[in-house]
Amino acid sequence: MKRRSLLSLASSAPLLAAGCAAPPRAVDADAPLPATGDLGVVVERARGALTVVNTSRREAVGRVEGLGDLSHASVVFSRDARFAYVFGRDGGLTQVDLPARRIARRVLQAGNSIGGAISADGRLVVAQNYQPGGIKVFDAATLALLADVPALTPDGARSRVVGLADLPQQRFIYSLFDADAICIADCADPRRPQVQTLPAVGRQPYDALLSPNGRHYIAGLFGEDGLALVDLWQEPARARRILSGYGRGQQPLPVYKMPHLRGWALAGRHAYLPAIGRHEVLVVDTDSWQEVARIPVAGQPVFVMARPDGRQVWVNFSVPDYHRVQVIDTPSQQVVQTLQPGRAVLHMEFTPRGESVWISCRDDNRVQVYDTHSLQPQARLDVDAPSGIFFTARAQRMGF
Amino acid sequence: MKRRSLLSLASSAPLLAAGCAAPPRAVDADAPLPATGDLGVVVERARGALTVVNTSRREAVGRVEGLGDLSHASVVFSRDARFAYVFGRDGGLTQVDLPARRIARRVLQAGNSIGGAISADGRLVVAQNYQPGGIKVFDAATLALLADVPALTPDGARSRVVGLADLPQQRFIYSLFDADAICIADCADPRRPQVQTLPAVGRQPYDALLSPNGRHYIAGLFGEDGLALVDLWQEPARARRILSGYGRGQQPLPVYKMPHLRGWALAGRHAYLPAIGRHEVLVVDTDSWQEVARIPVAGQPVFVMARPDGRQVWVNFSVPDYHRVQVIDTPSQQVVQTLQPGRAVLHMEFTPRGESVWISCRDDNRVQVYDTHSLQPQARLDVDAPSGIFFTARAQRMGF
Repeated sequence: MKRRSLLSLASSAPLLAAGCAAPPRAVDADAPLPATGDLGVVVERARGALTVVNTSRREAVGRVEGLGDLSHASVVFSRDARFAYVFGRDGGLTQVDLPARRIARRVLQAGNSIGGAISADGRLVVAQNYQPGGIKVFDAATLALLADVPALTPDGARSRVVGLADLPQQRFIYSLFDADAICIADCADPRRPQVQTLPAVGRQPYDALLSPNGRHYIAGLFGEDGLALVDLWQEPARARRILSGYGRGQQPLPVYKMPHLRGWALAGRHAYLPAIGRHEVLVVDTDSWQEVARIPVAGQPVFVMARPDGRQVWVNFSVPDYHRVQVIDTPSQQVVQTLQPGRAVLHMEFTPRGESVWISCRDDNRVQVYDTHSLQPQARLDVDAPSGIFFTARAQRMGF
Repeated sequence: MKRRSLLSLASSAPLLAAGCAAPPRAVDADAPLPATGDLGVVVERARGALTVVNTSRREAVGRVEGLGDLSHASVVFSRDARFAYVFGRDGGLTQVDLPARRIARRVLQAGNSIGGAISADGRLVVAQNYQPGGIKVFDAATLALLADVPALTPDGARSRVVGLADLPQQRFIYSLFDADAICIADCADPRRPQVQTLPAVGRQPYDALLSPNGRHYIAGLFGEDGLALVDLWQEPARARRILSGYGRGQQPLPVYKMPHLRGWALAGRHAYLPAIGRHEVLVVDTDSWQEVARIPVAGQPVFVMARPDGRQVWVNFSVPDYHRVQVIDTPSQQVVQTLQPGRAVLHMEFTPRGESVWISCRDDNRVQVYDTHSLQPQARLDVDAPSGIFFTARAQRMGF
């Protein structure tokens, strides 16, 4: 009997294996299925792990370990919202299978990495690297390296790359901290990217953002008092300075943490951005690119993020004020609420239609979820030292 | 050697079996999985069926039959992008399980229905009805009826309902064709919706749209030459007329098909809308709500849709010009291309990041996919009499 079962097992093993590998076609409508539209991940910075979350049920649904150094990690998603691509500080690029809750593939692609992007067609994943500088292009399905594109200063030294974002048509834009340049890499032939360089954009671009429509790329400048703007709808693309004298160059306060430009809020025709070193949020007209207002806030802003409808802007702060979050009403441009979600607020993420916001409170080891209309807590998740929060709806958006 | 492998197989058999019976937690990273972020449906109008499509592979991946009368059908998606809710002309509301490719639940909820919406939290599905008038509120998980909300004229007669859209906080907005009114139903207590009525908005609102940020609701007026606008960020909400005299009331051409307002394009600060009965697309400033330009086009426009980045607007036409599609470049406000995708173009849908557009050509029984940058065909799918095309990314957006 035992022998027969062994034999039958052996003979059916290929079928079994195939049966396990294939997707379930007929399923119970009430059974949990790996639909992925409402999933997300919370980075557990200290543990090198992700907590997988469900934003409909507002709870943790799984955990994936073994992702290396996740300080300053960032995440993009595959077009079908099945895979998370995690860019670790240690140069690790990990493809995490969300429905399976496990690592599918992982490569150590650089010595020090600071983020990545995915093409609109979902076929190319690109990492931006500090050490060595440059970008690397990977096949999103296999993580096979397709191209290693150096980023060089005029003297031929390698430059650190920051502010990487996807553009339409398998193109990517990024900034060279050490070369005062912005580059656009066309990866239509991904093994031979064609790189266009815009030189002398300003001193030391340190981070950048792409507007939600993909038209404007804005790089913050560490080495001078202003920002660099590229209008990607103009031919040929060129960079110009905006907001010269907005305060970067004459800081009355020590800067505890550089703000993240990626968190800039674009609401209606106004951009809301963190004033560096000051307890202010700047309001900028996106037609004239002139500053039109400053809103006093409770500390040095780090993330300044618009609710998806643009009706509110949420702000968190650097130490010592990072136990607070403030909510700005955009029509009146006033702070309407100050919340204390927990200790060491590091990141915020809105649900796609904006009804909730998830806030990571690192030193309380929890993620706090708020109703953005009532401003009341909706849920609380225990997560070890949470930092970045990323929802799969990012797969559907440019510049994330 | 062979024996050892058999034994090791046997000892792992319970694990294998558990892996097959349970939802697949450990799966082959290369196997197709029901991740749903890049799925969509094409309505087969004549067959009462849906073709399920994958927009990454640009191909049909399944088919679901038995949905009743799908002329003028519309579709919304569950928050996790697993279920499509199909509103049929015959009053059928069908919950289709996309990964399983089958009907999960179906109710006949009215005699004549014209569309529906889903709340931001994904818990409520609402249908708008012609016959009898009014809206019905359903539990999105079970399709249990929660509330039947009549829509009445001042004389107490039932009114047809059009232009339904979801608002934040389980609220819905819709127009009463027979009562010259716009209603906002707050379904926070879904068994007892609270309805606010804005009376005398204009004669015979026949369709409406919600701006992508949920701020502006605009209803077209069949009975007079203008539109009704509600700014939902103002308290209290009230309707005002805009674009009076824009041409609706003095038609020099017969109107072959009423344009769909739902297809209005909002690109930057301009709205692009179909002129009724004229071979023109109107351009309207969304600050002043004044007409700022008219763009000559190849026929009477039906759908006027912005590529997600707003750089292009695509237009299809009513009979006899419905074999053509035109592409407007928004910065120059000029037609830059005229395509002939096939006979009887009924609908268009952009992929979420806008790299492709899918076009249904009813009388050629095919869906034609174009690259929106090169304007070249990318793929072609055989589908029986295709009409509406809907991608799951709509789950993440307001007003769809």
